[in-house]
Amino acid sequence: MLGKLLPETNGPEGRLMEAIRYSTLGGGKRIRPFLTLNTAALFEVDSESAERTAAAIEMVHCYSLIHDDLPAMDDDDLRRGRETTHIKFDEATAILAGDALQALAFEIISSDKTHQDASIRIELVDALAKAAGLKGMVGGQMLDLVAHEHNFDVNEVARLQRMKTGALIDVSCLAGCILGKASEHARHMLHGYAHDLGLAFQIADDLLDYEGDEETVGKKTGKDQAQGKATFVTMLGAEGAREQAKALSAQAVEHLAIYEKKADPLRDLSNFVVERLS
Amino acid sequence: MLGKLLPETNGPEGRLMEAIRYSTLGGGKRIRPFLTLNTAALFEVDSESAERTAAAIEMVHCYSLIHDDLPAMDDDDLRRGRETTHIKFDEATAILAGDALQALAFEIISSDKTHQDASIRIELVDALAKAAGLKGMVGGQMLDLVAHEHNFDVNEVARLQRMKTGALIDVSCLAGCILGKASEHARHMLHGYAHDLGLAFQIADDLLDYEGDEETVGKKTGKDQAQGKATFVTMLGAEGAREQAKALSAQAVEHLAIYEKKADPLRDLSNFVVERLS
Repeated sequence: MLGKLLPETNGPEGRLMEAIRYSTLGGGKRIRPFLTLNTAALFEVDSESAERTAAAIEMVHCYSLIHDDLPAMDDDDLRRGRETTHIKFDEATAILAGDALQALAFEIISSDKTHQDASIRIELVDALAKAAGLKGMVGGQMLDLVAHEHNFDVNEVARLQRMKTGALIDVSCLAGCILGKASEHARHMLHGYAHDLGLAFQIADDLLDYEGDEETVGKKTGKDQAQGKATFVTMLGAEGAREQAKALSAQAVEHLAIYEKKADPLRDLSNFVVERLS
Repeated sequence: MLGKLLPETNGPEGRLMEAIRYSTLGGGKRIRPFLTLNTAALFEVDSESAERTAAAIEMVHCYSLIHDDLPAMDDDDLRRGRETTHIKFDEATAILAGDALQALAFEIISSDKTHQDASIRIELVDALAKAAGLKGMVGGQMLDLVAHEHNFDVNEVARLQRMKTGALIDVSCLAGCILGKASEHARHMLHGYAHDLGLAFQIADDLLDYEGDEETVGKKTGKDQAQGKATFVTMLGAEGAREQAKALSAQAVEHLAIYEKKADPLRDLSNFVVERLS
């Protein structure tokens, strides 16, 4: 679906589309679309609605990775085992590819192909814009950049991660709820699931950066340590972080108790996050 | 209105908000909000609706300036007579400020404070996302970056400018039409106005870069020439460009014939664009 939603261009601006295709179709774990599709499935949402929404959220995620990898930001050359977008192309193209992907995400959601009801579409736009913006993903990235100037405690690191990665994970589940006109209670439970999953996922990521090798992880490891970055591992120790991730993963699954077998893919994902760690 | 719509933040991420305020509240000609407000006025749109929409479009414009000025793009140190955002702050903050502004624009439009009717709001989101994206502003910026590799003729330069600056000028008028539920005919006429105005404006800009001095223009001049860039001035000569701008300005005004005095601010703007040139 993601590939189909990327427009064709033939003019001299084709380089931009190449960079967009390179950065969005180059693999990755696809956790956010997985969440949207499987949350939507709980409420029997039409598959085209779910797939378009999932693709839009993944585009926002991909744009954030392109910009995060830039020399002025995290300065990463490697991502998912391949050159990052600004290395493969150039910095200007990478900046514009990210900018275009953000606009494209909102364009896709606003189309009536995503949902016939304009009030559902605008609720999706609102949720995604908030998750992507100042109080969400971009604000969290800013916090991450200034973290070394402050002495963040574990709560502040948790807040940073809730913004930087948690907000988009949360909206991935929320989007399924919006499309499915889910009850307040259902939204609340899936918000709880997303919150715990997001944190477990981040702790696992920190652990992989700390313990994993570059080839398995697909990106440079040991960077956090080298930069003296405050992470869950530096705060809690490797063993403490591992325990915390497991507890959060179990807690995430508990939020799904009201759903029977239909929620199994969401349960499996939560288990997968911590299985990587043992 | 723009200042009121910028959220307060107190945490360590406050630097991001400072950069956003710096880049959006630092003056500028405010042509796009002027167009939205005065187009909306033709259709007696509620002022809060018009102001919020105008602010959102201006935020997209401001984000594009921040990113365009980056070292990897046009590498400008000066804008509106002040340091550009990445000079005043740093590159990472400038990239994130632009990213956050784009998200904020869509957040503002999606709020029911902008319009009570969700279908109007989603039409605005759709129009703005298209104008800002691949086939509009960002695509045009990409064309601009690769222009030196191609031998653009005057039609290709016009296409580049229609995308890079024309699309956002066009949507500024279209947004007023959407809010005012304007007829197809009215939209068509205002599209014609915006198209001619946008091109006249760009030619005037090229002339100011060619002939103006840095102090009056508020940014570095003579850059196009120094970079050997294809502009309307290099294509048509200074005198030809001046004539073309005047013809377009007059033609823009003709599209407003069906509106009486209410369209005078739009007429004045079109005249102002070329009055600067004589």
